[in-house]
Amino acid sequence: MAVYTEVTDEDLSAFAAQYDLGAVLSCKGIAEGVENSNFLLVTERGPYILTLYEKRTRREDIPFFLGLMEHLSDKGVACPLPVAARDGVALRELCGRPAVIVTFLSGLWPRRIHPQHCAELGAALARLHLAVGDFTMERPNALALAGWQDLFAKSADRADEVAVGLRETLETELAALAANWPVGLPSGVIHADLFPDNVFFRGESLTGLIDFYFACNDFLAYDIAICINAWCFEIDGSFNATKARLLLSSYRKVRPLSRAELDALPWLCRGSAVRFLLTRLYDWLNHPPGAFVRPKDPVEYLRKLRFHQTVRGLGDYFLDDDDQPAGA
Amino acid sequence: MAVYTEVTDEDLSAFAAQYDLGAVLSCKGIAEGVENSNFLLVTERGPYILTLYEKRTRREDIPFFLGLMEHLSDKGVACPLPVAARDGVALRELCGRPAVIVTFLSGLWPRRIHPQHCAELGAALARLHLAVGDFTMERPNALALAGWQDLFAKSADRADEVAVGLRETLETELAALAANWPVGLPSGVIHADLFPDNVFFRGESLTGLIDFYFACNDFLAYDIAICINAWCFEIDGSFNATKARLLLSSYRKVRPLSRAELDALPWLCRGSAVRFLLTRLYDWLNHPPGAFVRPKDPVEYLRKLRFHQTVRGLGDYFLDDDDQPAGA
Repeated sequence: MAVYTEVTDEDLSAFAAQYDLGAVLSCKGIAEGVENSNFLLVTERGPYILTLYEKRTRREDIPFFLGLMEHLSDKGVACPLPVAARDGVALRELCGRPAVIVTFLSGLWPRRIHPQHCAELGAALARLHLAVGDFTMERPNALALAGWQDLFAKSADRADEVAVGLRETLETELAALAANWPVGLPSGVIHADLFPDNVFFRGESLTGLIDFYFACNDFLAYDIAICINAWCFEIDGSFNATKARLLLSSYRKVRPLSRAELDALPWLCRGSAVRFLLTRLYDWLNHPPGAFVRPKDPVEYLRKLRFHQTVRGLGDYFLDDDDQPAGA
Repeated sequence: MAVYTEVTDEDLSAFAAQYDLGAVLSCKGIAEGVENSNFLLVTERGPYILTLYEKRTRREDIPFFLGLMEHLSDKGVACPLPVAARDGVALRELCGRPAVIVTFLSGLWPRRIHPQHCAELGAALARLHLAVGDFTMERPNALALAGWQDLFAKSADRADEVAVGLRETLETELAALAANWPVGLPSGVIHADLFPDNVFFRGESLTGLIDFYFACNDFLAYDIAICINAWCFEIDGSFNATKARLLLSSYRKVRPLSRAELDALPWLCRGSAVRFLLTRLYDWLNHPPGAFVRPKDPVEYLRKLRFHQTVRGLGDYFLDDDDQPAGA
């Protein structure tokens, strides 16, 4: 869950009075999300989401996130739209924290991933990548190669508490990633955290994407690698090639992938596995004992990393000819 | 927070299809409540609350709770109303747990208690006590004297981990309560857990009561004692006589209190303090390390108990003449 800040009714009423949303009828903390405090705010105008940005979100990054959501909404990508107060400003302050009200997005995030969810996801991800083509704000990826090294340095001494040999595995892998990380792939703004709980569906139809608070500039294909790791493995750790195939092929119907992007996928998947392994490892070793949030299991991503380490090319993912680029 | 059970979208859709509520548009876990899993369920008909009853709620008690909410709604006491599915049955099953959909109650629970909140509370509590006069179902209070002894026996050995001398304090107090507990006071169904997070307001106007899952038969005045403890102490531990006076006087405008009830208040307050001290002590000593719920501080109720132990009569609560019964 994530409600780190208690908002008093007086503070909330004063805050809501800045908007043209009518009176506040209800405000309930949402037991989802990890980084920020989220509330389902019902006003006379209907339901909204109120987000209070907690420490981990840097205040100077917030205009990028809000601008991105506005840009995407404008381009027809379904996502929460920041709501401006009467003075035209969406980013405000509540209880000493940056705060924003965004529109409510209907849909449920899938607890069990069907192949068709992955097909919908691939197309939506490609539409997002096309939509950001003319988005002019930039945010470097703090969790790229250099960031991984920093995170590793903070956790290395205690890594083997989580899995014996993990320190050495990570050390070797980070060196391999540094030596083999692709260069010159098509870049742009990526979501960078498109896990199932950030993608809403109605039945098997995708209704929208949420939580753009890791969005940054990086290789577009790296976003695909993050999704492959987050959506195409079963709970038992096995790789589901059908899901990956649907994700890739539906992506490519909207935004074709170059040979270089396809060839880079195994390294991008390894890098993505390391990125989530490292943040989970850090959180596992450093979560305060009284924290509300149960830290996620780092070992899940160690297993995914090991799988990708065995892959030499796209064929090893059991992706068949249909997944080769049209011009190949 | 409280979301103990993950509901898959498939299970939820099948569940909702039993009702005349249209399609499910959204379902978000609510980060409030302790005993059960609560979700804010938005359907084509509007918002509802979906509750899944977890282990601590006994299945055989649920018809009493639902019947009580139906009875109170019927009598005009604003509270959630169980929604029947198409077959007329409200209590169903979801993910192997008893589950019910109830109507959505607007309002916010007060994070900072104003005196006027206590006045509204007193009147609402009295209306509840009048409304249950002809409610025929019964549920004994499992957390009365005998229950306190049981709880104490389970925690006694480790009580001093929480506060030095707590074991002896509780042992002495339980004996005093057994010797002095009032008899023959007006009885009926009480809410038994009317803490601020179970009472919704819009501004300073009370909009409804929720969470009837501790409701049981006991002295009506014991419910007042629970509210005095939950609403009339400041964060620094001081007793706010203004709030208590407003609570009592507005209660008595709706349901007069007998001399015996007023005289019993100090003992009822001590008993209520012990009841919450004991459950908090037990939870403090027994909460699993990975639990989502941060246990509540038992010491808060030890301080309240100590305050009531110094009280010899209503006057010691600084309640003035207006608070004496009309015929006194």
